[in-house]
Amino acid sequence: MNKRPWISLKRKIIKGDVKKLVDFLQSISSSEKARALSRIDKENISKLLQLLPHDESADLIKDLPNEQAAGLMEGISPNDAAKIVDLLPKKDQIDILNDFSSPASALALIETMPFEEAEETRRMLKYSENTAGGMMGTEYLAFSENMTVGEVIDNLQANSDKYSDYDVQYAYIINGENKLKGVLRLRELLLSSRNSLVKNIMISDPIKISVETKIDELIDIFEECDFVGIPVVDQRNHLLGIARRYEIMEAMGERETDTFLKSSGIIGGEELRSMPLLKRSGRRLSWLSVNIILNILAASVIAFYQDTLSSVIALAVFLPIISDMSGCSGNQAVAVSIRELTMGITKPSDLFNVLLKECNMGIINGFILGILLAIVAMFWKGNPYLGLVVGGALMVNTLVSVCIGGIIPLVLKKFKKDPALASGPILTTITDMCGFFFVLAFATKMLPLIH
Amino acid sequence: MNKRPWISLKRKIIKGDVKKLVDFLQSISSSEKARALSRIDKENISKLLQLLPHDESADLIKDLPNEQAAGLMEGISPNDAAKIVDLLPKKDQIDILNDFSSPASALALIETMPFEEAEETRRMLKYSENTAGGMMGTEYLAFSENMTVGEVIDNLQANSDKYSDYDVQYAYIINGENKLKGVLRLRELLLSSRNSLVKNIMISDPIKISVETKIDELIDIFEECDFVGIPVVDQRNHLLGIARRYEIMEAMGERETDTFLKSSGIIGGEELRSMPLLKRSGRRLSWLSVNIILNILAASVIAFYQDTLSSVIALAVFLPIISDMSGCSGNQAVAVSIRELTMGITKPSDLFNVLLKECNMGIINGFILGILLAIVAMFWKGNPYLGLVVGGALMVNTLVSVCIGGIIPLVLKKFKKDPALASGPILTTITDMCGFFFVLAFATKMLPLIH
Repeated sequence: MNKRPWISLKRKIIKGDVKKLVDFLQSISSSEKARALSRIDKENISKLLQLLPHDESADLIKDLPNEQAAGLMEGISPNDAAKIVDLLPKKDQIDILNDFSSPASALALIETMPFEEAEETRRMLKYSENTAGGMMGTEYLAFSENMTVGEVIDNLQANSDKYSDYDVQYAYIINGENKLKGVLRLRELLLSSRNSLVKNIMISDPIKISVETKIDELIDIFEECDFVGIPVVDQRNHLLGIARRYEIMEAMGERETDTFLKSSGIIGGEELRSMPLLKRSGRRLSWLSVNIILNILAASVIAFYQDTLSSVIALAVFLPIISDMSGCSGNQAVAVSIRELTMGITKPSDLFNVLLKECNMGIINGFILGILLAIVAMFWKGNPYLGLVVGGALMVNTLVSVCIGGIIPLVLKKFKKDPALASGPILTTITDMCGFFFVLAFATKMLPLIH
Repeated sequence: MNKRPWISLKRKIIKGDVKKLVDFLQSISSSEKARALSRIDKENISKLLQLLPHDESADLIKDLPNEQAAGLMEGISPNDAAKIVDLLPKKDQIDILNDFSSPASALALIETMPFEEAEETRRMLKYSENTAGGMMGTEYLAFSENMTVGEVIDNLQANSDKYSDYDVQYAYIINGENKLKGVLRLRELLLSSRNSLVKNIMISDPIKISVETKIDELIDIFEECDFVGIPVVDQRNHLLGIARRYEIMEAMGERETDTFLKSSGIIGGEELRSMPLLKRSGRRLSWLSVNIILNILAASVIAFYQDTLSSVIALAVFLPIISDMSGCSGNQAVAVSIRELTMGITKPSDLFNVLLKECNMGIINGFILGILLAIVAMFWKGNPYLGLVVGGALMVNTLVSVCIGGIIPLVLKKFKKDPALASGPILTTITDMCGFFFVLAFATKMLPLIH
């Protein structure tokens, strides 16, 4: 494996030998392509895309993550970009256009497409990314219900090159108005005479999916049946595309990625370090600046107890510990709730059940963690009452944290907010405030004993 | 939709009317089944599984998340469990057995299987879950190279019921020793005479995958080609199974889930609230107890500066703010690195590049966040030097956090540790120590000005 593929690639771009470039790109894996391109400056990438034949550029673009592909396509002229994008499957075109950072440049690209292509692209872009419409493929086999088995076989034979890219196991049977009439297992063709009409051997009234179907439901549907693909129709039963099992599974993976990134404070889509610094910085700051305000709010609780703190300065050592530990306990509960919501085995109406389960958990874990911290405090300062104050505060606050952590995602979901995004900051603000309050209020009560 | 499916289900279990139970289970979605079963006590679930015919139980088990299915199967006798599990596709059997909490009960179940089944199951369990062996399906079409097209078509016709569950688009052609010789597109059967030998129309020397191939490489392979399935072979080219595109995409999703859960402190596999309380609590505590030690370690820095703190008690308000904000900034960098590592566009050897990119980011974000916090501190206490101390500390510590956060996952990966699991705790321990040190050291230097 080439350890620094970007150095070889850059050298070849500068030399400008197209054949060597193509050979080199074909010799490295897709992740290495992505890695190499993320290290090469904008000008050389433009040069590379101008040097390569359009089909080679399309192959390259197809191998990159969507965000990176969108960045490259925005960096060259809409005319050139359109020629490359045009060679990708429709689904990939839409995914890349959806990741353009400016809608204007996406529109500019679409404008330069041939009229019918542009129309279809605009129509596809209208479907939300998380619906059957946004995830369906538009390359599939469709035959008229009035064709015979022989005609279909001849068509397959004549177009075998074109169809070889499709994953074909089924053909979809439509009437003259493109309405879905049935599904034909291709292997039925083997078992029927050339003269029979496909409408007589197709599965009529097949399972189909509305173009509006949301991803959660799609996952459910594919988990309940064994189909590799299911036709997608509009309200009037026009065949629009095929939802494919692997696309749905891939979308499920992307949703999980999104959850992970959002819960880590990366919002506004996936960040790649090859993106412009200011864009990356701005996105990260948009979340951090909310967070700093929440933090100041939480810490202001401490300001009310400055007298207690100045009497027992050791408490200042325990405040960050209690804040962090409660945050961790609560985040575990948040993660379990987000996961159960995603799987559909918990609904917002299950709030009391979740609360009960987390309450039991909080009592056990709070007790154990509280004892641990109490022992540390007691041995450090030789004061059992200090141990009682900080251990007791951690105990109570762990209980509060897991309960709140468990239910926040359900409440956010109920109000149609994204749990992955908002649960963390809300949780830590509440648990910090409570944690600081418990330590300092307990300490104030017991001041004569711990002073 | 039934709002409380577990109430109806439980009532039907108690009544014991099998037909009504089957009808009810068929009327609800798989996530509702999972939800209902997670609310029903162990005894009634045992009763349900005894009431249902084995094939209905198998259908039910197939719809549940693996962890939940494993829990149910462990709750009944190995004999009954084996009869149900036996009806699942091999791949599902393995997934469920892998999630058994005790290897002993998994072995007990395997013991009661028919000899050949048990042998195959043991063989499959040996493959690691993240390799082609652990992910391949073992239900596929395989024909001898010496068969004719006519014989294959007759076989397909005779077994069409059995094959209808397979997603068949290809058949795999083997010799007498089960060695892979070629791949046959089923549609080729349409275009050939009944007398030709399949070995003459198959694709010889097809793409194949070693049973040891790791998931990252599998994802790369499937992203680079358009195949729906690729045959999996051992070192001596024996056909063992088929790696399917949707299974790989699903495994990709599971890996993302795993990353999210681990980064949130849920380790040892997915937690469902239907699992036993002590198991859940133990798993969560195993991580929290490490964390509390790291927290105490970090906070001990504060103990060294108690004199400074007691002179300027306001600093105690800012310690948790700086700890939390640095943790957040660093976690963003961790998430981007984990993501780029997963995608393969960053390698551990890219450490200096990542450091450089995060350094630029840290300077910008640190500057902005530092100014914000400085303004707050200045206005609160009317002391510009206090602003300088806390703002300056946040500025420097943000830079430290994003740099460390960016490189920790690379370093962990280099030493073959799981970045999702360990990055967070390591990061916050370091950034807390540094953060507390910067605030208190700066304050000590400027004590006369902020006192």
